[in-house]
Amino acid sequence: MATVNPPRGMRDFLPADKARRERVLAVIRERYRAHGFDEIETPVVEEYDRLHAGIGGDNEKLSYNILRRGLDADAIRQGADDPASLSDLGLRYDLTVPLARFYATNRGQLPTVFRSIQIGPVWRAERPQKGRYRQFVQCDIDIMGDDSARAEAELMTASLDTIDALGLEGGMVRVNDRRVLDWMLDSFGFTVEERPGVLITIDKLDKVGTDGVVKELSERGATAAAVEAFRAFMTRPQTMEYNPYGERQIRKALPQDAPDGLVAELVALGEAVAAARPGAGEIPLVFDPFLVRGMGYYTGTIFELAHPSVDYSLGGGGRYDGMIGRFLGQQVPAVGFSIGFERIVDLVASLEADESEAVVLVHDADVPLPELLAHKAALVADGGRVRLERRTKNLKALLERASADGYTAFATVRAGDEPGALEVKSLA
Amino acid sequence: MATVNPPRGMRDFLPADKARRERVLAVIRERYRAHGFDEIETPVVEEYDRLHAGIGGDNEKLSYNILRRGLDADAIRQGADDPASLSDLGLRYDLTVPLARFYATNRGQLPTVFRSIQIGPVWRAERPQKGRYRQFVQCDIDIMGDDSARAEAELMTASLDTIDALGLEGGMVRVNDRRVLDWMLDSFGFTVEERPGVLITIDKLDKVGTDGVVKELSERGATAAAVEAFRAFMTRPQTMEYNPYGERQIRKALPQDAPDGLVAELVALGEAVAAARPGAGEIPLVFDPFLVRGMGYYTGTIFELAHPSVDYSLGGGGRYDGMIGRFLGQQVPAVGFSIGFERIVDLVASLEADESEAVVLVHDADVPLPELLAHKAALVADGGRVRLERRTKNLKALLERASADGYTAFATVRAGDEPGALEVKSLA
Repeated sequence: MATVNPPRGMRDFLPADKARRERVLAVIRERYRAHGFDEIETPVVEEYDRLHAGIGGDNEKLSYNILRRGLDADAIRQGADDPASLSDLGLRYDLTVPLARFYATNRGQLPTVFRSIQIGPVWRAERPQKGRYRQFVQCDIDIMGDDSARAEAELMTASLDTIDALGLEGGMVRVNDRRVLDWMLDSFGFTVEERPGVLITIDKLDKVGTDGVVKELSERGATAAAVEAFRAFMTRPQTMEYNPYGERQIRKALPQDAPDGLVAELVALGEAVAAARPGAGEIPLVFDPFLVRGMGYYTGTIFELAHPSVDYSLGGGGRYDGMIGRFLGQQVPAVGFSIGFERIVDLVASLEADESEAVVLVHDADVPLPELLAHKAALVADGGRVRLERRTKNLKALLERASADGYTAFATVRAGDEPGALEVKSLA
Repeated sequence: MATVNPPRGMRDFLPADKARRERVLAVIRERYRAHGFDEIETPVVEEYDRLHAGIGGDNEKLSYNILRRGLDADAIRQGADDPASLSDLGLRYDLTVPLARFYATNRGQLPTVFRSIQIGPVWRAERPQKGRYRQFVQCDIDIMGDDSARAEAELMTASLDTIDALGLEGGMVRVNDRRVLDWMLDSFGFTVEERPGVLITIDKLDKVGTDGVVKELSERGATAAAVEAFRAFMTRPQTMEYNPYGERQIRKALPQDAPDGLVAELVALGEAVAAARPGAGEIPLVFDPFLVRGMGYYTGTIFELAHPSVDYSLGGGGRYDGMIGRFLGQQVPAVGFSIGFERIVDLVASLEADESEAVVLVHDADVPLPELLAHKAALVADGGRVRLERRTKNLKALLERASADGYTAFATVRAGDEPGALEVKSLA
């Protein structure tokens, strides 16, 4: 018999996994809704041209394209030199392009400041590898129509609250601002034209260190004096004293004479998030002047959610004030955060299911079906979850199996037993 | 500005619609889980060959096919005469083909009798029309590994309980059996070869009536004596007395001398479902000898869920004992039911949201952001759902808008107000 598998790089979810994913999603939904976000849904496919408009960055190349329906052999031959002409639709590779399209389509029916939740699968034809899948769930919140730091503060607060609720207390937000990055690269002496390439290199700082970045910048042919200024800054003598988030930490992390306005904005953001989490102790933000985030569309604040238990981020986002205008023809400020659902679901493996009693009802083969179903109905009516199992020789194995599936109790039934009068015993 | 729309035949869901859909899904999930079903998930795409193996009937022609990645112009030209060679994957058009594949893949990790729930979108490139969409949600339960009527009875009971929980009490199951249909067509004198075509025609009985069916059967060239036997049976004199579900109703609805075994099975099924719904009155089944259901894979019982408030079915299913064997190479009995989620979601428009208080927090522009967020945090901590709104000149319009979005209360905040001390007023 041939092996039968899901498509390459994609996953089936068995009951235990699926139940855990749904429990995590329920917490995320509930917390984000509590913070005033409203869930929306868009189709999983969008027009080909929209998916390939340059907003998706490298993800555009990884998209799954759908063959136009009804093409005959001639049409296919004619389209061979322009494969894009063979596709009219594609599977989305993120939730941001569909959101911008959704907002442009439905703006008249949305509040002035619109706080959205989107939860759904996206697809990328990446080389399959451990922990990276071709279909995976993204979970985004975005605020459109608010150009103030209120929006960033609400996103951060809601997301910290959400990971708290998932049992991941102690989360921190690493924060930076694209305008700060631009100013800093200016102050080193990089030209405006060099910026995109320099940012791509600096984004590797965590991985390759200062020496690696300096080497790559030189190889890129970046302005030599600027590369040296960067190196000198990174290796400057510093006292190692700890500074909590605030003006002192921010100024110490930047070259001298950082613009007062930008620093003040970052300081204010920290104060706002702290006020929103009374009793939670220190400001849960860390300023990181070399946080870059890959997407080209960010225009202001950028941030990532960190947790002490792991060395990767649990999500990230930023302000992208220019993008919706591309669809709407009218500028709308926007800021978004994408929580790393697939990573989080692995971390919270032990999240408690707060379920009502789950009972395995073991019956002999000779229990008449009406009697059997009346027993089940009585247990379901009591608020339980009930699975029927015909008795097998190895009752122990049967009960162990049910326990592994999340069942917590069992009862046995024989022909003639009275419905509602079964003795329910714990499986523990 | 060009109009920006979702892809043809597909829908965006705004917050109110999305919330209602999620509430309905939550009820369906909870009820089916209570009845011992476990939710699983498969990728939304499957291998092209699997989707075009003849199981999907007409839906195979409506499938969205995904272009292979990395095809160059030569490869496309070579594939022009065999468009299937250009696709390796496709979007699923139902949840049954993926379920059969899932079961074959994962059987070793599933209980002997496996009761699955699947909820997710499917795609069909149909001509868009009112109430028919190219992406829509299906919601299936299936029982694999049980060849007894216990499985049918559990599916029917769980589904009746689910529509009860959705406020659609009074549901009925129309039931038939493919083996009964086969016997009946035999008894009229149709040949085995004529059966598939005759079934397609008889399936139109509701729409075109006996005369229409007789006409179409004749046009098809069906055995003339059989067509006349069918006509005579349909127009036989009958007393119009009402018969509850049971042997009498079943025998009266069939030609004479219906096989005792099949009749007994149908009678027993009704008794089992009735026993599972104590106190619900009459057996909630109706025998319908001309219920056909389109798919070719049914082998036994077939049934549809009816409700007195509507003249279309709220879902349907049947036994398909042969299908899983096609993937697994080993026969596994199976029976499934697909609840009509999209139809039901329209019917239960008024389903109550049992939500905690939802508060609009109206603030002046001069309330400092930390103060504002502290107020929000206090309301969220009280278990509320909170949306911030900056005060506008027309407060009434703002509150009406919030009320339409499902908010139930509001509070106003001025600079200097104490967190937790705001007066929350009802929006009603």
